[in-house]
Amino acid sequence: MKIAVIGGGSSYTPELIEGFINHYWELPVSEIYLVDIEQGKEKLEIVGNLARRMVENANVPITINMTLDRRKAIEQADFVTTQIRVGLLEARVRDEQIPLAFNLIGQETTGAGGFAKALRTIPVILDICKEIEELAPDAHLLNFTNPAGIVTEAVLKYSNVKTIGLCNLPIGTKMRIAQLYDVNPEHVEFEMIGINHLVWTTKIMVEGKNVTDDVLKKASYTKGITVRNVPDFGWDPLFLKSLGALPCSYHKYYYMPNQMLQDQMKAMKGGEIRAKVVKKIEDELFELYQESNLKVKPKQLELRGGAYYSEAAVNLMTSIYNNKKDIQVVNVQNKGILPCLPINCSIEINCLIDKEGARPIQPSENLPTQIRGLLQIVKAYEELTIEAAVRGDVDMALQALSIHPLVGADVAQPLLAKILNENRRYLPQFN
Amino acid sequence: MKIAVIGGGSSYTPELIEGFINHYWELPVSEIYLVDIEQGKEKLEIVGNLARRMVENANVPITINMTLDRRKAIEQADFVTTQIRVGLLEARVRDEQIPLAFNLIGQETTGAGGFAKALRTIPVILDICKEIEELAPDAHLLNFTNPAGIVTEAVLKYSNVKTIGLCNLPIGTKMRIAQLYDVNPEHVEFEMIGINHLVWTTKIMVEGKNVTDDVLKKASYTKGITVRNVPDFGWDPLFLKSLGALPCSYHKYYYMPNQMLQDQMKAMKGGEIRAKVVKKIEDELFELYQESNLKVKPKQLELRGGAYYSEAAVNLMTSIYNNKKDIQVVNVQNKGILPCLPINCSIEINCLIDKEGARPIQPSENLPTQIRGLLQIVKAYEELTIEAAVRGDVDMALQALSIHPLVGADVAQPLLAKILNENRRYLPQFN
Amino acid sequence: MKIAVIGGGSSYTPELIEGFINHYWELPVSEIYLVDIEQGKEKLEIVGNLARRMVENANVPITINMTLDRRKAIEQADFVTTQIRVGLLEARVRDEQIPLAFNLIGQETTGAGGFAKALRTIPVILDICKEIEELAPDAHLLNFTNPAGIVTEAVLKYSNVKTIGLCNLPIGTKMRIAQLYDVNPEHVEFEMIGINHLVWTTKIMVEGKNVTDDVLKKASYTKGITVRNVPDFGWDPLFLKSLGALPCSYHKYYYMPNQMLQDQMKAMKGGEIRAKVVKKIEDELFELYQESNLKVKPKQLELRGGAYYSEAAVNLMTSIYNNKKDIQVVNVQNKGILPCLPINCSIEINCLIDKEGARPIQPSENLPTQIRGLLQIVKAYEELTIEAAVRGDVDMALQALSIHPLVGADVAQPLLAKILNENRRYLPQFN
Amino acid sequence: MKIAVIGGGSSYTPELIEGFINHYWELPVSEIYLVDIEQGKEKLEIVGNLARRMVENANVPITINMTLDRRKAIEQADFVTTQIRVGLLEARVRDEQIPLAFNLIGQETTGAGGFAKALRTIPVILDICKEIEELAPDAHLLNFTNPAGIVTEAVLKYSNVKTIGLCNLPIGTKMRIAQLYDVNPEHVEFEMIGINHLVWTTKIMVEGKNVTDDVLKKASYTKGITVRNVPDFGWDPLFLKSLGALPCSYHKYYYMPNQMLQDQMKAMKGGEIRAKVVKKIEDELFELYQESNLKVKPKQLELRGGAYYSEAAVNLMTSIYNNKKDIQVVNVQNKGILPCLPINCSIEINCLIDKEGARPIQPSENLPTQIRGLLQIVKAYEELTIEAAVRGDVDMALQALSIHPLVGADVAQPLLAKILNENRRYLPQFN
Repeated sequence: MKIAVIGGGSSYTPELIEGFINHYWELPVSEIYLVDIEQGKEKLEIVGNLARRMVENANVPITINMTLDRRKAIEQADFVTTQIRVGLLEARVRDEQIPLAFNLIGQETTGAGGFAKALRTIPVILDICKEIEELAPDAHLLNFTNPAGIVTEAVLKYSNVKTIGLCNLPIGTKMRIAQLYDVNPEHVEFEMIGINHLVWTTKIMVEGKNVTDDVLKKASYTKGITVRNVPDFGWDPLFLKSLGALPCSYHKYYYMPNQMLQDQMKAMKGGEIRAKVVKKIEDELFELYQESNLKVKPKQLELRGGAYYSEAAVNLMTSIYNNKKDIQVVNVQNKGILPCLPINCSIEINCLIDKEGARPIQPSENLPTQIRGLLQIVKAYEELTIEAAVRGDVDMALQALSIHPLVGADVAQPLLAKILNENRRYLPQFN
Repeated sequence: MKIAVIGGGSSYTPELIEGFINHYWELPVSEIYLVDIEQGKEKLEIVGNLARRMVENANVPITINMTLDRRKAIEQADFVTTQIRVGLLEARVRDEQIPLAFNLIGQETTGAGGFAKALRTIPVILDICKEIEELAPDAHLLNFTNPAGIVTEAVLKYSNVKTIGLCNLPIGTKMRIAQLYDVNPEHVEFEMIGINHLVWTTKIMVEGKNVTDDVLKKASYTKGITVRNVPDFGWDPLFLKSLGALPCSYHKYYYMPNQMLQDQMKAMKGGEIRAKVVKKIEDELFELYQESNLKVKPKQLELRGGAYYSEAAVNLMTSIYNNKKDIQVVNVQNKGILPCLPINCSIEINCLIDKEGARPIQPSENLPTQIRGLLQIVKAYEELTIEAAVRGDVDMALQALSIHPLVGADVAQPLLAKILNENRRYLPQFN
Repeated sequence: MKIAVIGGGSSYTPELIEGFINHYWELPVSEIYLVDIEQGKEKLEIVGNLARRMVENANVPITINMTLDRRKAIEQADFVTTQIRVGLLEARVRDEQIPLAFNLIGQETTGAGGFAKALRTIPVILDICKEIEELAPDAHLLNFTNPAGIVTEAVLKYSNVKTIGLCNLPIGTKMRIAQLYDVNPEHVEFEMIGINHLVWTTKIMVEGKNVTDDVLKKASYTKGITVRNVPDFGWDPLFLKSLGALPCSYHKYYYMPNQMLQDQMKAMKGGEIRAKVVKKIEDELFELYQESNLKVKPKQLELRGGAYYSEAAVNLMTSIYNNKKDIQVVNVQNKGILPCLPINCSIEINCLIDKEGARPIQPSENLPTQIRGLLQIVKAYEELTIEAAVRGDVDMALQALSIHPLVGADVAQPLLAKILNENRRYLPQFN
Repeated sequence: MKIAVIGGGSSYTPELIEGFINHYWELPVSEIYLVDIEQGKEKLEIVGNLARRMVENANVPITINMTLDRRKAIEQADFVTTQIRVGLLEARVRDEQIPLAFNLIGQETTGAGGFAKALRTIPVILDICKEIEELAPDAHLLNFTNPAGIVTEAVLKYSNVKTIGLCNLPIGTKMRIAQLYDVNPEHVEFEMIGINHLVWTTKIMVEGKNVTDDVLKKASYTKGITVRNVPDFGWDPLFLKSLGALPCSYHKYYYMPNQMLQDQMKAMKGGEIRAKVVKKIEDELFELYQESNLKVKPKQLELRGGAYYSEAAVNLMTSIYNNKKDIQVVNVQNKGILPCLPINCSIEINCLIDKEGARPIQPSENLPTQIRGLLQIVKAYEELTIEAAVRGDVDMALQALSIHPLVGADVAQPLLAKILNENRRYLPQFN
């Protein structure tokens, strides 16, 4: 079995390698190709060498290959994963800072920052897909690249590659609920419905008992039910009760925009926007990765925000490979399962995973109206963003920002101008 | 033919009477019942007497009846119109001021103000509908009462009365386009799609020629394509081009919230919020109405904001009565004509008007994504508001405000508390 | 204004010419191109000369052109009409006789006969459409060619031509109802819903009064509410009552298959299948058309079955040309107006006709279940037939016949073999 | 855990008891209530005593209760199963014979026979549901009563009981495919889509390999892929290839009506219609059941046609009880998973089974057009039948028969008259 890891020089890679090592008994990977671009060559080598030490240390017969030749990596792969960052962390710094200059949330995946990242990323991903269509038409593409929902939808709409979008948020939520109830995560079941980074947990069962209302009470004021990338303000109990579902971490940008913006402003003034924090962590990680006696994934990687990533990714591959028919929350094409959203958009939802990929399971209840409305407008933003990215269409880009609940038409024009200008070299489609 | 005008003491009534007079030849109304509540008795008498003088002066055989007995007015009516204001203009003052105290748009129909008005109005309208069901089951209810789309939807969902929601905005838009091109309004055709006070004109034909793009250019920076209730800032040309449709006046609250809010703040500081301006105009109007030598609708009424109301209302009744099969933009049940919205919600759209009422005509193009997203979230707000109003459900009320693009979850709780508190005596369903 | 009449040598053409003459005052046609194929040359000349005499006699300045050069006829036409018969009347004889040999209804448009005609016709029509796209991209294609619903759907799916499918059945129904009530046809309104030759009249208003139930009673046992092409058995009153809508003439094949089959069998034994009757009428008509003193449409044409064709066609062109916004029952794309049918299929329904073409008006009631079921299976047959015709796909052809209510899987294979074999030279797509 | 078996005197009951015995280790049933009506008292006692001997012989602590008091049986049950036969086998004889007198397929569940059974059964089932709502509101109703899809839909539409419709056909199909490939049934996976007794297997995987096309080849001419109730004619290979899916046994009535009818006619002449065969088998079975040394399910029961019934039933209860999250093909509410069918109808489809019941999994492919059409018309028939049964509406009954592909409007009236007349005492709703 061959795995191609596009963006193999990422600091997350050791996480992934650990996953392959731990699950080798059920997912007998023989070859992993870590591929990256010229600018990432140095990091690729550092990470690749660590991966080799990890594999050797674990005594599993996985060959680690490092290459700059993407076609070679993709050829005949069984699984392709993407964890690329077009424009590197510098671009992320801009994604977070530009919106703040307009008094708007600056975030890697949500709002104007995620918009800019989508414009840069979609053309590159679609190029990768063309190669997969040619060189590995049966491969499953597991897309981790953010904004994962938008990128996955672009692939579903503009390529024939079998793709599933993946995020660590669902598995993270399961882990936190397991902690809340002090049970094994296996005894936590839930229904998540929505789109990537805007997904509601509408029903939670612990040891077979419906504890949704109880979790909503427990989640109030409680910190910790959140991913590490997002500041941790507690939810208001009346709000949660009226919502009737557990929001995800990224919902805070929509439901507590003022507080989140103030927090970001403060961080920016302190020079501590998330991108810079991450950059610092990454620098330290790569320092660490170079130590030749490091032969396992270092603990420090968890600070990076990608907890359970390898778990999510390797679980998915394992279920596909072994035709497991278990349930995982992933990003797939809607095809009518959420009738309030377009038939061909991507959604994040409980799916049955088998040899053929992922198929949604019908939710037990209709979507509450309050969820539906927010979901629909953000999905409309996502569709406009994809069209703008694929066609290089400024009108659609402007409308995408104009209707986004965290941006708005008031500010969309100068903001778009700045985004297009500062990302110029990564946006050939707009030139 | 008998007409019942609920809220007959309204300052708008002379407008309506004028319409009946002018169209008497094709709409032979024999009896008009102006009905109002005890508190409106004085105004009712003033308006009713003016109406009698108008009818007499015009020499048409219409009998004007004034009554506080709503059942008597409704009994066997052919058409019932509602132009009520639960809580009178004082309530409107609060609707506009409360949101401003939270730094939010304060508007009679849009945002938190319209929300408060809906909570007060829906139970009263549904009471009226029960009487219509009993006393005039074949009557058409023409609802002008704002928020007209929400109120109409409540009637469609919770009664069996034949109802059509009516607004003067579509006819006003037609008049302005006719002015722009210096043509007879009859030579202007358009497609309007959306919901009340959030309706886009997606296609404009003047003398049979598609001039949509040209209107979008002309509408840029131009003042005057707006209703009198909404401040008149010009649209940005790039924004209009990217939108690809002409927004309505009320869109400015969504597309230019900052500018609109600043304008309102300034007005409030100057003591000139719209409700107070209107109150002053109304006081002057009623002064005027009492002059016994006034026998026609006074010019000053046009300042009030209801231009073309009688036109819209009487046109609609005339087309129904005469089975005219012409096209008018009114509020009706969706029934699938806009597949992106719920089957049973109200929409504002081009309809064929005949003896049976109004039926939508399929739009020539699918809704652009940018329109769809905003429409969907505001409709979700509307549905939550209706459920909150009918059931007295605080959770739904909280979520309605939380997802409204002009309010938000950040501020919804204290805002809701204040709205419920200050409207206490008009909201028995919440007690 | 230029009209291209493809299949101009048809015996129907004088009907059409009469229409253009009568409506010249509101539809100022300057040039009519009658175009036909080499084999039809002689008839084309006969018909063309009659047309010239008719025009001259009526003293209208319309130029009649006859040509075998289809491109020349189409170039810059404003309207293109098609009334072609691939394989001529000989093919129709086969279409009617082949099914009878399998003990099945043999009919030009319904069942296996219509299926064969569709296979022959669709490729030719799509070729014509390619020429229209190239030479007259703004032209409206008015398709009369049977099976008109299937052919129109093929055009809607596989070309960009603006097209409307047209049948004389709706206007014929209106005329018969007018006769029943002895009123001017203008005072008859109805809602027709369905697909071509399978269309139900669900609501009938005469002089503004709903007379649906009364028409159903009157239609029972009554002859005459039918087109001339279909034998005239009276409807059973209990059946009509339970159906709750007036079926069309072609419904008899579905609702009275035994009686219809027996009638056809008897006719066949007497050598009087419809195709042969028609052939005889046509021979006589062309005899007549050659008489140089014939300068108007001869009465005998009405026996042919095409009554009101010119009315329907010229009405449609007139309404488009004059942006009339009246209501006509034509075949257009569904686009969701009948949610039980595919979004992109053709339906026959009340439409508003204006300069841009035809747009459906939402029916007043949801489709009754009994109508929905039959409609859906016949539409599925139609879709399979179109795919079979376009792709030359034998599997789809076999399934089309298998699910048709008047054919069935029992007999589909030998029947299909015979159809493909006997139409070999007109079905290049299957070779 | 308490199980109520309505119609407990059925000859199938030992099958069910065997299932409970075999699965006792994972489904710890403590009490089984066999309940029947007065006329079934004798059979109930025979079956109940056998059940007691079986349980005792197997040494499992299950108490068998026999009662004529349905309320007592239902009270606080965890699962209720229904296997009733309103009118007993005598009614089935009529269901099969009446249609044959009209030259139509006479079958217990399909066509006019199933229609009559539905009219008799639905009111009784809805009465049972009222008792469940009152006495065991948390119980799952597993409905085996035929026509199972129609009966289940009636329950879903007209009660609040949690219900799942169950048939042995899916599990039987799995067993036959396992035999074909000589593998353990666990290694067979498939997607079944449709409605009860009209369900297509669209995708078949054996040991993880897609063998759909291969099964279609193997199924051609092969006998044995069928349930015992339906004559076993081989499928035509070209037909199967063009269909692209494996039909179920009952499809033969739709796809080979002539052959099936001839077979039935022959059987009738020989006095061997299925109902009589079954009656004879049943008489023999009850003879056997009385032997006091019989302590296990007798082999002969398999001839009866209910093979795998206990398997299907106990599997379903076990998965619900143990929150197994495995996949079973059952009858549930559509809720949009098959967009071509009404939202609230019943469908038979792959479902995930957990503590809450059954939820559909999205099929991997859209339904082929040829499947869609037949499915839609039969579903329309089913809906009309349910409405007719619930309301006692003769018009809907007439239309139900008129559009059924195996009946038709030609013959519907006298047929309906005969059905209503001969079932008079079981159809109070029509009196």
